[in-house]
Amino acid sequence: MATHKLLLLPGDGIGPEVMREVEKIVGWFRKRGVGFETETDLVGGSAYDAHGASISEDAMKLAQAADAVLFGAVGGAKWDSVPYAVRPEAGLLRLRKDLGLFANLRPAICYPALADASSLKREVVEGLDIMIVRELTGGVYFGEPKEIVTLEDGSQRAVDTQIYHTYEVERIARVAFDLARKRRNKVSSAEKFNVMKTGVFWRQVVTRIHKAEFSDVALEHVLADNCAMQLVRYPKQFDVIVTDNLFGDILSDIAAMLTGSLGMLPSASLGAEDPKTGQRKALYEPVHGSAPDIAGKGLANPIAMIGSFGMALRYSFGLLDEADRLDRAIANVLASGTRTKDIAAPGANAVGTQDVGDAIVKEL
Amino acid sequence: MATHKLLLLPGDGIGPEVMREVEKIVGWFRKRGVGFETETDLVGGSAYDAHGASISEDAMKLAQAADAVLFGAVGGAKWDSVPYAVRPEAGLLRLRKDLGLFANLRPAICYPALADASSLKREVVEGLDIMIVRELTGGVYFGEPKEIVTLEDGSQRAVDTQIYHTYEVERIARVAFDLARKRRNKVSSAEKFNVMKTGVFWRQVVTRIHKAEFSDVALEHVLADNCAMQLVRYPKQFDVIVTDNLFGDILSDIAAMLTGSLGMLPSASLGAEDPKTGQRKALYEPVHGSAPDIAGKGLANPIAMIGSFGMALRYSFGLLDEADRLDRAIANVLASGTRTKDIAAPGANAVGTQDVGDAIVKEL
Ligand SMILES: CC(C)[C@H](C(=O)O)[C@@H](O)C(=O)O
Ligand SMILES: CC(C)[C@H](C(=O)O)[C@@H](O)C(=O)O
Repeated sequence: MATHKLLLLPGDGIGPEVMREVEKIVGWFRKRGVGFETETDLVGGSAYDAHGASISEDAMKLAQAADAVLFGAVGGAKWDSVPYAVRPEAGLLRLRKDLGLFANLRPAICYPALADASSLKREVVEGLDIMIVRELTGGVYFGEPKEIVTLEDGSQRAVDTQIYHTYEVERIARVAFDLARKRRNKVSSAEKFNVMKTGVFWRQVVTRIHKAEFSDVALEHVLADNCAMQLVRYPKQFDVIVTDNLFGDILSDIAAMLTGSLGMLPSASLGAEDPKTGQRKALYEPVHGSAPDIAGKGLANPIAMIGSFGMALRYSFGLLDEADRLDRAIANVLASGTRTKDIAAPGANAVGTQDVGDAIVKEL
Repeated sequence: MATHKLLLLPGDGIGPEVMREVEKIVGWFRKRGVGFETETDLVGGSAYDAHGASISEDAMKLAQAADAVLFGAVGGAKWDSVPYAVRPEAGLLRLRKDLGLFANLRPAICYPALADASSLKREVVEGLDIMIVRELTGGVYFGEPKEIVTLEDGSQRAVDTQIYHTYEVERIARVAFDLARKRRNKVSSAEKFNVMKTGVFWRQVVTRIHKAEFSDVALEHVLADNCAMQLVRYPKQFDVIVTDNLFGDILSDIAAMLTGSLGMLPSASLGAEDPKTGQRKALYEPVHGSAPDIAGKGLANPIAMIGSFGMALRYSFGLLDEADRLDRAIANVLASGTRTKDIAAPGANAVGTQDVGDAIVKEL
């Protein structure tokens, strides 16, 4: 039987405590004969504290060798003033870039049982199911020059550069159209073509790929600022939204927050398929951050992290039955009212991080 | 008595019909002895149709000579494929840049009577009153290189450049802190210092200005993606938000949409004060866009445009009594139920653009 190599990178803040619950789930599957091999390493601020770098070369090697990386969260005020090159986020950015994880899939689903937890009206978000496809290895995150220079008069100038190449837009567009075909067959492509050349270019390439390969899918172009507005006004108009790295960062956070289920949302970051093996590098992480304010208190909701492992079962290992089983277990636990504070029903008792993990194992 | 020179640039879509209502208000004040001189010119797609440029040199001269510019809205699918340099938005961007209008003030106010029009729960937005201070003449909107180049292999690369200088961040920070002092004394500065050097720089400069000149004002730093989330989750935590041109574009649109009052929100774009005359260049425009779908139908809400004239009375002409009077007239008309479709109470009859303008004149 195949052995699946998992690298666990719990990171900072609530990362370690939500990852611990995933380990319980992995343990359960292992006992039932699914071959998982896990290694654990540091990333983010905790890696910086240990080695002075936000990810070590050894951890990078493990990541390259793994079939999938499970990533917790990084960052926190504690490391706000460490040098830019070794700040916690640099570890995550290096993983994305070096593993070539160009396609970030962020589903935003509003669980009916949790619709009241949203700050939006129930009818606006109930049943919401959109997928944000964010380009993850290009744009302003990685373009050069990226620098702060001191000028002759002592004042300074800071620069970031947004760059996109044809192949980068083509491949992310294909991911979005492919996904839309399995969903409600609509793609909304968001950019600022009215002020950015990368926006003009994005629109051109997406339009060309659409015409040539996916003319059966509905395509609309929407300005990123208007997209943000429309997400707030009437999010159910969207199915798949495809956008660049920076707009994707913001739009996916808005979409996640709409659902009232931030602690519930997983994400997948995927590389290109190897034409020979059919394998692709992949990293799975919760949409929420490291939440330093509640870290170490056993309050964090582990479902986004556990759901990220569920995405790994599905997208990296093709274990569809196991993924379905896990999803059902999560749904049953939610329905039974075993919930952390962020999603507890009004008046209901909230349970701790570990209780949710235990309940899901029991349900499995 | 002083004569105030106003340049009216109605623009495209619903711009002309909402500007017509402002002209009624200007007329009313003129009859009561306030000296207004108005000129009108083209901008945006309508200027392109007439001259092949999105603003003519003559119109730019009028703008330079005016005490304040009132701007309607530009753009529409009709001009989606005109050359980049002459697209409708270029006219607006040139006005901002050439007049040096670096400070864009976008209040987001939720009128109690309209709280139910928001897609957010009433208790989340009722009484909301935040001010977004957006840098308007720098960043990725204007940085060079900004281009699409064809490479040797026939593929292409698109580039935009975000640049900020010390003085640009200093002056916008001062505007934000100054405003906060007149409000609830809190500034939230939004950037992505975890991935952008301009974000690192922005945070440094804002922190320095705060320490040196405004340590009595509360300052917090917030990541732009988190700021977008927090605007959706619990917007009342904010007072003044200061941010760069691109984040400001998106965050201010979210803030506006939260209020349920998009058709109600004015904005001011201000230049530096002339040390000799105390005058500053200024442009006033509604936050909403050109809304081509309802243009020409008499459905548009003119209150954002009329409120923009109110901001001109206040910020450009120091006519505080007149501004208060206009604000009161608007509030009374709203309370009386004379409302366009976008804000009509459920079951109530909506009136047209002109009816609202007429009612405000009558109320004055
Ligand atoms: C942690 C940070 C670098 C990251 C990003 O900006 O991409 C995060 O906000 C995200 O969305 O995954
Ligand atoms: C019309 C467009 C160029 C403009 C911008 O992006 O600044 C608009 O969205 C705005 O917010 O004023």
